[in-house]
Amino acid sequence: MFYQKHKSVLEDAIIACEKRHYWSPFIESPSRHLHPEGAHEMGKTAFELQLNTSFKLDQPGETGRTGLEISPYTQQPLGIDYPKSDTETIVSASKKAGQRWRKISPEERAGICLEMALTLEKQCFENAYATMHTAGQAFLMAYSGSGPNALDRGVEALAYALKAMRDVPNSASWTKPFGKAGAVTLSKSYRLIPRGIAAVICCATFPMWNAYPAIFANLATGNSAIVKPHPNGILPVAMAVRTMRKVLSENGHDPNILLMSADTKEQPVTVELLQHPDIPIVDYTGSQRFGLWIEKNCSQKLVFTETAGCNGVIIESTENIDGLINALSNGLCGFSAQMCTSPQNIHISEHGIETNQGQISFDGFRDLLVDAVKERVADPKRAAALCGAIQADESLAILDRLRNEKKASIALDSFSYEHPEFPFARTASPLILDVKSEHKELYNQEHFAPVAFLIREQDAESALTNATSLVRESGAISSYLYSSNETYKARAQDAFADAGASLWCNMTAPMPMNFAAAYSDYHVTGLNSSGNACLSDLAFVADRFRIVQFREPLSS
Amino acid sequence: MFYQKHKSVLEDAIIACEKRHYWSPFIESPSRHLHPEGAHEMGKTAFELQLNTSFKLDQPGETGRTGLEISPYTQQPLGIDYPKSDTETIVSASKKAGQRWRKISPEERAGICLEMALTLEKQCFENAYATMHTAGQAFLMAYSGSGPNALDRGVEALAYALKAMRDVPNSASWTKPFGKAGAVTLSKSYRLIPRGIAAVICCATFPMWNAYPAIFANLATGNSAIVKPHPNGILPVAMAVRTMRKVLSENGHDPNILLMSADTKEQPVTVELLQHPDIPIVDYTGSQRFGLWIEKNCSQKLVFTETAGCNGVIIESTENIDGLINALSNGLCGFSAQMCTSPQNIHISEHGIETNQGQISFDGFRDLLVDAVKERVADPKRAAALCGAIQADESLAILDRLRNEKKASIALDSFSYEHPEFPFARTASPLILDVKSEHKELYNQEHFAPVAFLIREQDAESALTNATSLVRESGAISSYLYSSNETYKARAQDAFADAGASLWCNMTAPMPMNFAAAYSDYHVTGLNSSGNACLSDLAFVADRFRIVQFREPLSS
Repeated sequence: MFYQKHKSVLEDAIIACEKRHYWSPFIESPSRHLHPEGAHEMGKTAFELQLNTSFKLDQPGETGRTGLEISPYTQQPLGIDYPKSDTETIVSASKKAGQRWRKISPEERAGICLEMALTLEKQCFENAYATMHTAGQAFLMAYSGSGPNALDRGVEALAYALKAMRDVPNSASWTKPFGKAGAVTLSKSYRLIPRGIAAVICCATFPMWNAYPAIFANLATGNSAIVKPHPNGILPVAMAVRTMRKVLSENGHDPNILLMSADTKEQPVTVELLQHPDIPIVDYTGSQRFGLWIEKNCSQKLVFTETAGCNGVIIESTENIDGLINALSNGLCGFSAQMCTSPQNIHISEHGIETNQGQISFDGFRDLLVDAVKERVADPKRAAALCGAIQADESLAILDRLRNEKKASIALDSFSYEHPEFPFARTASPLILDVKSEHKELYNQEHFAPVAFLIREQDAESALTNATSLVRESGAISSYLYSSNETYKARAQDAFADAGASLWCNMTAPMPMNFAAAYSDYHVTGLNSSGNACLSDLAFVADRFRIVQFREPLSS
Repeated sequence: MFYQKHKSVLEDAIIACEKRHYWSPFIESPSRHLHPEGAHEMGKTAFELQLNTSFKLDQPGETGRTGLEISPYTQQPLGIDYPKSDTETIVSASKKAGQRWRKISPEERAGICLEMALTLEKQCFENAYATMHTAGQAFLMAYSGSGPNALDRGVEALAYALKAMRDVPNSASWTKPFGKAGAVTLSKSYRLIPRGIAAVICCATFPMWNAYPAIFANLATGNSAIVKPHPNGILPVAMAVRTMRKVLSENGHDPNILLMSADTKEQPVTVELLQHPDIPIVDYTGSQRFGLWIEKNCSQKLVFTETAGCNGVIIESTENIDGLINALSNGLCGFSAQMCTSPQNIHISEHGIETNQGQISFDGFRDLLVDAVKERVADPKRAAALCGAIQADESLAILDRLRNEKKASIALDSFSYEHPEFPFARTASPLILDVKSEHKELYNQEHFAPVAFLIREQDAESALTNATSLVRESGAISSYLYSSNETYKARAQDAFADAGASLWCNMTAPMPMNFAAAYSDYHVTGLNSSGNACLSDLAFVADRFRIVQFREPLSS
């Protein structure tokens, strides 16, 4: 029923994954004239009405209430409590619900998932405010990052799941001669069997962007899922889970194929879920340290991780210095560099670079970049729209530590800009440090804070060597290159590929340099320590289900 | 070049995997009139000339000679020594060779793999004798099991690898509007990057059947491979590796993308390979115990295992008792039940079964089966062709232990039949034990020996419960059902699917009940403890390579 309803959209999604062109079934912009009248206000009101109340989720296994989220914008508790779930009870409810869910055809499951996605689109405004006040994103990013862009990645995963499942036929007839004894014909049928329950562990800064792909990949392939939001990112997840459960139950399905297990930093439940013997799949987004722990310690589970890397930018030369400075300053400011694709390390020859405005020295480049960033954060309104707020206090501590680092010189100090709407917002403009290449210990890891290192490299070759060695040592999700030298570009492309990293070249405005497009940009290679799973490829879905077969002679 | 040459065969293989019909590019029978004159004799001679000589493999890192294979047919050493390889040297040679190999197009790599497979077919006779005298298989099984049937599974894996790689386009053009700023067009290109080196660990009884799929899946996806034969199964692997290396070097490729590391039971090298940091992929066939150890201890590697299970047969009713007895007695004798698909546990109601010849009691069924097995092993020539030899002394020890088991009564004792050609052959006919259902400890694990348990179940329902619970506890590669009751069949199909096992129903002669056909039968579900990998599905290949991407504005 939902498969028929959504068939053409699903086929378009599959085609988009194959052609990797721009496509989306969702409205990307929150612009008022693209949405029903009052949609934005209603979403905002819904969010506000939720504050200081109990979030109703109507799940089994509720043993109490939990949740202690602080808004990065007010630095006050949201005052919302959520079901505290008994792990055994929800695991067993999830298991039970999965028994029926797996019997629904793959196509219909995909149809239901798309119905959920389209329903979720309708609450994008509500979820945007929830994301703002948990992750700290600015409204526009929260709208797309928990809304259409996240749903696009979800539908992309859904398309791959459908494709992988379609690869297995329902039945076959097989006739083979057996020598003098004659031919044998067997009738064969094949069933797709899900692995069981997936634990979907979400991160604080982008609560939905990896959650939707994991949820849809799991549900489409017949698994059930228990979503574990970050302790400070429960609300957006809870809203989505409630809506998806509603779509399920309104259409006669057991909503318990999707459950949420909320917790607090003080009483975490993650490891309990990860180690539960009835949970064979783990989808994790978060820190590299914990991601590696999971990869190592959940060895007999199917583990998909997206963590973090040490993203580098090589500046070799450019035909468009204004566009470069524009894009890079934007990239350093965007969500205060709390994105997994944010650039951190800027490798540039100490002898400067060739540009369309002639040779520019290292110091000249630094000044251009510093001025551009300064300008972006000078106006509080502009700063607020671009930088948003800082998700956690830890990031401020990192900035404090780094600005006192003796081996680095401060090219631009970070300051807390005054948010025009939220006077108590936790904010920080980018800190730019000027460092010598040899002080690798300063920049050879991700610093989860708005900080960039301008690294004085001996020359462009050293920059390439250093940047790719950092990919090998510390991983990278996005790497960037600015070069107008075709030979260098080709060499860099090879070098990053050899290091297991994708390379975005000469990204200039108006597109944000670190924008990753569903259906087109493969996100995370799995070849370095920034995660083992890619959004989305066949490997992201093909092992979430298995095949059992029945065969019998045709005559019997 | 080889892609063009073999394109139509590769496409046919892909179609066969989709339709899952019978198809093969290889000659399955060793029948003389299907092969060039003298092919059989030449193969036999080549094998005999190899005995008591040094096997030349021309590999790097040779630090001495190793190998101590005993023929199950003569119980004498083959007298062949092989290169003993320094692990660091071969790993670094493999790595180096991989650097060039990965740059060849996926299609061409697939073409070269098929060229190898077709070349390997020409040495099937030679390899059949090598397999006989290491694994203990009878000639006919050795011919197909290390020859066409194994190559078919290899080509099947190759077809899946090609399909998974084709899913990623080489390039894309992506145009997206960015609000008032206008549209951006990016030119994107995608590269497939292999993970690196695969360690392919082979088993003693079927040295090539899992080796070819692993080798071709790895090489096609751009990885290099180091094959580690079982200490008593080196020769068939060495012959194949030598031929494949020859195809590579004759066509201008570095043969070191495929290397062999031989060892002895006393000085094993397996763990050294498995734990080498430069080896990210492991393909393993062998014992369940070691397979589980690998799954647990190689957590950050991509691990594919096929091990062993406790294969059950439920006898509920039949319309063809003769065919059933014929097929089952054949299944118990075939290669002395040393196949991963051999049946072991026969579950039957103590009240007997309905058949086309009326009600047959448990004892009546036992007698029919015992008589049929007796008949098959009465004539040494027939016994030799069917049972072959026992690969290892351990199997004889198992028979000794079980025949003295007080809780079981011997329905048919095992004896060493006299091989007509090899008077010193290590042989054993099937031991059939009559046991009570409650003595589960007797049969709740795989006994790697020609032994079958006739299990007295309370009724057909108990049989189903017991058989599926054994799948859950101990795994199963193949499960069998004989039933003419449609309701029971449907329930059994569901119950086995729920337990994560495939079910072969009413298999009667002339087809061997446990024959698993490439391109049609998915081998190993990955849902129980008999292995985590399936021959072949997309999951068997999709994660062996990853994707890196390059993108750049079109105008730049």
